[in-house]
Amino acid sequence: MTYDLRPIGVVESPLDETQSAPKQGVEGSPDAWLVFDPAVAVGLRNLSIGDEVFVFTWLHRADRSVVAVHPRDDPRNPMTGVFSTRSADRPNPIGLHRVRVLAIAGLRIRVADLEAVDGTPIVDVKPVIDAGR
Amino acid sequence: MTYDLRPIGVVESPLDETQSAPKQGVEGSPDAWLVFDPAVAVGLRNLSIGDEVFVFTWLHRADRSVVAVHPRDDPRNPMTGVFSTRSADRPNPIGLHRVRVLAIAGLRIRVADLEAVDGTPIVDVKPVIDAGR
Repeated sequence: MTYDLRPIGVVESPLDETQSAPKQGVEGSPDAWLVFDPAVAVGLRNLSIGDEVFVFTWLHRADRSVVAVHPRDDPRNPMTGVFSTRSADRPNPIGLHRVRVLAIAGLRIRVADLEAVDGTPIVDVKPVIDAGR
Repeated sequence: MTYDLRPIGVVESPLDETQSAPKQGVEGSPDAWLVFDPAVAVGLRNLSIGDEVFVFTWLHRADRSVVAVHPRDDPRNPMTGVFSTRSADRPNPIGLHRVRVLAIAGLRIRVADLEAVDGTPIVDVKPVIDAGR
């Protein structure tokens, strides 16, 4: 049994190579635009500037066969099971990005500190609720 | 373009009906077992009791055509775009659950406060890093 993930938009970012992307958004990622499909416009209408949201992406360049990695691609770090890491390479390469909404222009939403590269598909957005959940 | 999500395990929970599931894990959800496929065993090996992790599920009973809801299924709440809610009904019904590891027994991991119903497919696990990211 598998499930069919359908992108609802795409990341527009100055980050254009996997290698240049910081490992986590807090480590100096640029601002980026989330560009959504018209089909989900109604779903966006209650987002506001200043909101903290989780953006879910599909890390389409990831290697899905990977189950253990050297964290941060540093061979000095011992091989670690991927479910204890934020490696993009993992069986289902869902990206989880906690970002703040900076601007909204129709189907385009500008967010701070997004570590996804240009062209990354967006699959969901959820509000951050209490305690970072 | 769509992407193929492949479950890596399944939730075993006393919650057996969608209707009985609390809206969020903090609202009195039971403990549950995450039961993983042998193929991802290596990916789990660095998880420890006490770890705080995000469990990603696929909310397989959700209605994917929904883009706005009355929050908490209460008609007194105004219709709200799904990306400002945690509604299970949404275009890509990925569940995000922040839980604590209580016990580990091979491919079975017991966690506290999981609001997913019995049989919900698991698609990813990530560590919680600083600031609830």
